[in-house]
Amino acid sequence: MKKIPVRGMRDILPTDMVLRQYLLDIVERVATGAGYQKIETPAIEHLENLSSNDGGENETLIFKVLKRGRSLEKAIDAGESLADSALRYDLTVPLSRYIAANAGSISMPLKTLQIGPVWRADAPQKGRFRQFLQCDMDVIGASTVLAEMDIIKTTVEILSKICNDSGISGLTVHLNDRRILLAAASYAGFSEEESGGVLISLDKNDKIGLEGVRKELLDHGFGDEKVGKFISLFERAGEGISIFDFCRQLGEGAVEGSVLEDLDAIMSLEDSLQSENASVIFDPTLVRGMGYYTGPIFECTVDGFGSSVAGGGRYDKMIGKFSGNVDIAACGFSIGFERIITILGDVGFTPPNTQERVALLVDRKVPVEKYAQVLRDADDLRASGALVSVLPMAKNTRHQVELLEGSGYTRFEKIYAN
Amino acid sequence: MKKIPVRGMRDILPTDMVLRQYLLDIVERVATGAGYQKIETPAIEHLENLSSNDGGENETLIFKVLKRGRSLEKAIDAGESLADSALRYDLTVPLSRYIAANAGSISMPLKTLQIGPVWRADAPQKGRFRQFLQCDMDVIGASTVLAEMDIIKTTVEILSKICNDSGISGLTVHLNDRRILLAAASYAGFSEEESGGVLISLDKNDKIGLEGVRKELLDHGFGDEKVGKFISLFERAGEGISIFDFCRQLGEGAVEGSVLEDLDAIMSLEDSLQSENASVIFDPTLVRGMGYYTGPIFECTVDGFGSSVAGGGRYDKMIGKFSGNVDIAACGFSIGFERIITILGDVGFTPPNTQERVALLVDRKVPVEKYAQVLRDADDLRASGALVSVLPMAKNTRHQVELLEGSGYTRFEKIYAN
Repeated sequence: MKKIPVRGMRDILPTDMVLRQYLLDIVERVATGAGYQKIETPAIEHLENLSSNDGGENETLIFKVLKRGRSLEKAIDAGESLADSALRYDLTVPLSRYIAANAGSISMPLKTLQIGPVWRADAPQKGRFRQFLQCDMDVIGASTVLAEMDIIKTTVEILSKICNDSGISGLTVHLNDRRILLAAASYAGFSEEESGGVLISLDKNDKIGLEGVRKELLDHGFGDEKVGKFISLFERAGEGISIFDFCRQLGEGAVEGSVLEDLDAIMSLEDSLQSENASVIFDPTLVRGMGYYTGPIFECTVDGFGSSVAGGGRYDKMIGKFSGNVDIAACGFSIGFERIITILGDVGFTPPNTQERVALLVDRKVPVEKYAQVLRDADDLRASGALVSVLPMAKNTRHQVELLEGSGYTRFEKIYAN
Repeated sequence: MKKIPVRGMRDILPTDMVLRQYLLDIVERVATGAGYQKIETPAIEHLENLSSNDGGENETLIFKVLKRGRSLEKAIDAGESLADSALRYDLTVPLSRYIAANAGSISMPLKTLQIGPVWRADAPQKGRFRQFLQCDMDVIGASTVLAEMDIIKTTVEILSKICNDSGISGLTVHLNDRRILLAAASYAGFSEEESGGVLISLDKNDKIGLEGVRKELLDHGFGDEKVGKFISLFERAGEGISIFDFCRQLGEGAVEGSVLEDLDAIMSLEDSLQSENASVIFDPTLVRGMGYYTGPIFECTVDGFGSSVAGGGRYDKMIGKFSGNVDIAACGFSIGFERIITILGDVGFTPPNTQERVALLVDRKVPVEKYAQVLRDADDLRASGALVSVLPMAKNTRHQVELLEGSGYTRFEKIYAN
């Protein structure tokens, strides 16, 4: 029998759950208050659904579920695949399948909130686990930019609330559009087939810089001229270039006017955000890893904490892959739950206590026939709004009280045989 | 791409989530109010931990996780096991491992609340799925019956709240003790080794009746006399036999006096339960499937709805299997979340709306530059406490409004370009 969790997995202690629960409560309260409805998809998905969805490197990190009984025997004998299902590596692929499967039972446009674990067989490291929680909001069946704006605004409200509570300063929403990125690649002379790979290289900009991206593209065998033309677009961009100025470089009509209008509308959100510390900026080097995005893409960063705490975008073509016929408009924002937990841990934030906590410590010598009365007494205390825990008194009572104080208990009543 | 969920799995629709969320909220509010602290264990466990824990038939229903990369290749070449980890089939085995692993970081006695999915490859049927939610409360490190009483009382408060809200009538807690069952088997002449199997047969009493149990025991090759003596104990018991009268049949000292005192204390809970509709009865035929119980065992039924909605007991020997040395006292009660959801569905219960719901329906012709203003208006409405959802207006607006009314929306504002 092994007592340490499976490699890359973790146990969550009561004290750590307090912070997680605080974060979950905010996400649920704000998102459902804005009309996002909770849904759930199963943890196990068809392997074929997970293996061909532009999921990028996540697809190489899948935990497969072994076939069972006769079908396992058959697979072994025939040298066939040992698995036809696997644990989901994100919530977007299952959501897309879900929408296709339940189109008849749900009303669109639909705003969903999905919170649940996902699994990736990444090399474990500090703060990175093989099972972790994702929180996704999605707007399904809405083709206008109202969807992006609603989802970005709601996400920023959630993150602002957390920043306010914990004393973390401002938020920045980074905005770009897949169609602008493709127009930029096309302007530089890359073919449609080449664009996907080129953008994956550009995505590394924040780690290796534009010179690193240039080198990688040249290493991939792309010509000097194309690569130079592409990189220079972003060199000239620098900080704070307007969407209009960036797109003007690509030539008249390279990016449709409606795309610019949509992005302008998203930028205008800045004035509507309740938080005074949130800004929305155009970031032409923002790529997002997944190839399934079709329109605006966005990330949110907490000032002073590097990598993003939320990311998403429009993916109008993905549900159609499951429904087999029509495309269904879709747009999502995924909150980096674990990343935020890490940041809150780093700043030493502890959620405020909202309820008085009382411990009734029952001495071992109290006769059993008195126990029911102790439990009734606890009820009476609860009636006044307190959290009341009845506990056997530990031998080292002082240590027990100290630990309970660490969990927010402020009142102790010791019950003796009399 | 397959759009139907993997066999035995299910998608949970927004309307179904409302009921599930209502139930979860009650469990969390009552349990944490009584001092139970939330914890989490990973979904994936060591296969060896799941395969030898008196988990009964659950152990045959395990979903195994395929090894990866080099270790999979090695396993195939060597004809070794293709998996060394698997999805948990309950929350008790992972909890026991958790306590052993984290003994240095947690304070005992510890009261835990664990809510999470488990997986069993059962034959799917109506209301039974291969992934389902379990809600477990456990008291760890408390050897007195105060633990059982606290956990039973808290569970009954949860179930009573649900019964009150939904108009379902009374609850019955069924109580027995593993030590009484073993004494009964011993009294009839069964050896210690035989007792486990005998009790598994007795457990079928509610399905096949005492005559069925008698037949099964005879089929297993046990002698007429032993079987007759054993069955007659329960025949004489009938309804409402007292613990004292049942144990008197087994002879002086067959059951220790402290066991009877503990059970009496649990029975006395009936007077302390806030619900007037809950009773506690001694049920000598109650067995519980798992062999890991060591003391009191209990189940809770909702009057008129047959099978139990919660079950648990004391299991003082299980954590010791993981910690490798000392036994740690433990006692748990698992709420049958999915069973309760089915019952609430059968009686047609809908959770009460606690918040006004407003939909702002935005016509397609409203120009994008007006969207930010609409979102600000929604914020203003939210400030008054309402849930406000901004949605694109559907082409069939009347149908959209009807569907939203079905989700509890009562106020609609249509926004046109004007």
